[in-house]
Amino acid sequence: MKCASICTIGDEILIGQITDTNSGMISRALGEAGIRVTRMLSIGDSRDEIIRNLRNELKNNDIVITTGGLGPTKDDITKAALAELSGSEKSVCSEAQLEIIRSILHDRGLDMLDVNLQQAMVPDSCEVIPNRLGTAPVMAFRFGEDRFGRRASLYALPGVPFEAAGAIRDVIGDIRRHYELSSISHRNVMVYGLAESALSKKIENWESSLPSDMHLAYLPDPLTGIRLRLSIYGGEKNDEEARLDSEITALKEILGDLVYSDDDDSLERTVGRLLKSSGRTLSAAESCTGGEISQLISSVPGASAYYLGSVTSYAVEVKEKVLGVPADTIGRFGVVSREVAEAMAFGVRRLLGSDYSVSTTGLAGPGGDGANPVGTVWVGVAGPNGCDTRKFVFHNDRKRNIERFASSALDFLRRTIENDLNV
Amino acid sequence: MKCASICTIGDEILIGQITDTNSGMISRALGEAGIRVTRMLSIGDSRDEIIRNLRNELKNNDIVITTGGLGPTKDDITKAALAELSGSEKSVCSEAQLEIIRSILHDRGLDMLDVNLQQAMVPDSCEVIPNRLGTAPVMAFRFGEDRFGRRASLYALPGVPFEAAGAIRDVIGDIRRHYELSSISHRNVMVYGLAESALSKKIENWESSLPSDMHLAYLPDPLTGIRLRLSIYGGEKNDEEARLDSEITALKEILGDLVYSDDDDSLERTVGRLLKSSGRTLSAAESCTGGEISQLISSVPGASAYYLGSVTSYAVEVKEKVLGVPADTIGRFGVVSREVAEAMAFGVRRLLGSDYSVSTTGLAGPGGDGANPVGTVWVGVAGPNGCDTRKFVFHNDRKRNIERFASSALDFLRRTIENDLNV
Repeated sequence: MKCASICTIGDEILIGQITDTNSGMISRALGEAGIRVTRMLSIGDSRDEIIRNLRNELKNNDIVITTGGLGPTKDDITKAALAELSGSEKSVCSEAQLEIIRSILHDRGLDMLDVNLQQAMVPDSCEVIPNRLGTAPVMAFRFGEDRFGRRASLYALPGVPFEAAGAIRDVIGDIRRHYELSSISHRNVMVYGLAESALSKKIENWESSLPSDMHLAYLPDPLTGIRLRLSIYGGEKNDEEARLDSEITALKEILGDLVYSDDDDSLERTVGRLLKSSGRTLSAAESCTGGEISQLISSVPGASAYYLGSVTSYAVEVKEKVLGVPADTIGRFGVVSREVAEAMAFGVRRLLGSDYSVSTTGLAGPGGDGANPVGTVWVGVAGPNGCDTRKFVFHNDRKRNIERFASSALDFLRRTIENDLNV
Repeated sequence: MKCASICTIGDEILIGQITDTNSGMISRALGEAGIRVTRMLSIGDSRDEIIRNLRNELKNNDIVITTGGLGPTKDDITKAALAELSGSEKSVCSEAQLEIIRSILHDRGLDMLDVNLQQAMVPDSCEVIPNRLGTAPVMAFRFGEDRFGRRASLYALPGVPFEAAGAIRDVIGDIRRHYELSSISHRNVMVYGLAESALSKKIENWESSLPSDMHLAYLPDPLTGIRLRLSIYGGEKNDEEARLDSEITALKEILGDLVYSDDDDSLERTVGRLLKSSGRTLSAAESCTGGEISQLISSVPGASAYYLGSVTSYAVEVKEKVLGVPADTIGRFGVVSREVAEAMAFGVRRLLGSDYSVSTTGLAGPGGDGANPVGTVWVGVAGPNGCDTRKFVFHNDRKRNIERFASSALDFLRRTIENDLNV
């Protein structure tokens, strides 16, 4: 199995001002292509550090992928380092990239500056893979066994995440043309509603009876629950698929409706699919989640087919005046209560005229209301068969509590719709 | 200057299923304490890999900080690796951590399981820094010069982000007790409304005249604009502060109202401060941003003092019926238009009774409306002096466009309020 290292270059990541999302994206793409990632590395904008680290990675891996360090303001250091590493003494202009740069600038009504022109210049030791989404091209460097003790390739990608994501597809294609890749098979099962330790206990018999060439990974995320990923590396393609299918079928029987998808998926996409296929519409009334649920639902391309909109009723008066929650209900039960969650769900469903609605009222923290512990949320789901409510309590910071509130609400909504549709 | 390496342990990060936010958080904390981070590393859950990589990091750094690999389901590998690395052959129970575990489980109404008990067991070669926020303790290992050629410390932190964030404060305190740290000074200036290359051009004279011991970093982010960070490492504390202040004053004069804060800040916090100090309230009407603006505004603790709420009018009927946008306006100008943005802003301001309101209507993509290019947004800001509108056009994918729409709207709102208040 070929192995790879991913290296991000840039002080902004090293000093913690930017979160690196490229490495994960690249690792997923490599993993799907059957390439094992041995490690990820972040280094600063220093020519010596770049050379020293990349040299070491090239000694230990078949493929090294770098991102970043190619922006117009710091272009020189990384390119100079790559030129030195690959023994190039001359820059050449990539006509293909220059053409793209011209067209991008033209579309945006901008003039070609010297810095733009510089971005098309590359060491003559590399092959250019044009970057259609931005100005900095992908550079591919090939090294024979004589250089680092093994045949190795280095791909330098731009750091802008959507440019890197666009480029990685071309890079994987290039890797396939240069390397024989071993097969890899995965199955994902998305689970919501159990903590990692409880899930591990629930499936321990199934897990311990897995064949030795299968590997199970637990991948928890506050917004999606736990992704269970079952993998076989390097077997016979046909046999693997059938064997994974049979294990996954057994797993799903154990987990029942805790499973919301057997694809690499999210709750908001699952809810979207259920609504779309049944021709139903949705609205939301948010208090403590402040727009998070609406933002998740509308992040799915095509959500306008089933999502009508939402009311964020952060202030009590908005709950009363816009959503029609009776002041008396709030007075008697408090804002964070089953009764208010229900009235909010009914209120937004009526106001926006949707088939379903979901509501939240709770305490994300840091401050509490004196009555309920911080981390408490009441969720309401109203639909053709009335309104259900549920309370959840989490123990995280504000940001994480809001995420858990939102995903719990989406999962509750998912179960309600599945139940109505007899899925 | 002391140097450090940050190492995340866990297959979930290496295979790209989780984005590592701990490394950045830890790097920021180390940087503020005057410790230089030399690199960040991610490795998998393999005992040999952990030992091999940590040994190498300990040879090259004063301080090595690991996160992850201590969860109940994979506890053994990392602890066994750290025991071997530090020459421990015996586990001992941390009574302090066990007490915390008992209390956490009690608060959540859970029984103590064997896996919970195991989390309080640590190699006898480490000092425990209790983790008050979770079950896995922080382990501190000290190595003399005889082990790796330099005096070095290793701190193993839990991987759960808010637990790691809580633990890092105690770790920094421990580092201060064991090492003499050199001073470091930073100033941040938050800029919104210019691309990195244009900003670089605008301040190039100022930048090129900076003293040689000052370092300027450009830190762009779609949600916050560009953070300019000016640093001096290792000088005399008093002198540095005054010199940085004088450079920052000059910089702010060049940039004018492009600067929204001279603290490490966000647009939503800046808007919140302006509203709070002037006693004004805010509401939002979102179409293409789908709740992102509301979610950003309400992510600030204490936002309920000025934020009343929002309407996400994803469907045209919600724009008409709830926000009162005339059907005729939509018919004549189209949904993505100055006129609709204005009517939405007026509509939500009236409906929720706020002093200010902000609205968005645009095309995040991937599909367009045939009339406007994907990436177009109209933003409206209504206030005591009427309504202003502006059009922005971006060239990103759906997710990034939504972020840029939201931050542009917040910046437009920020400028309007500053203007009204004569800030």
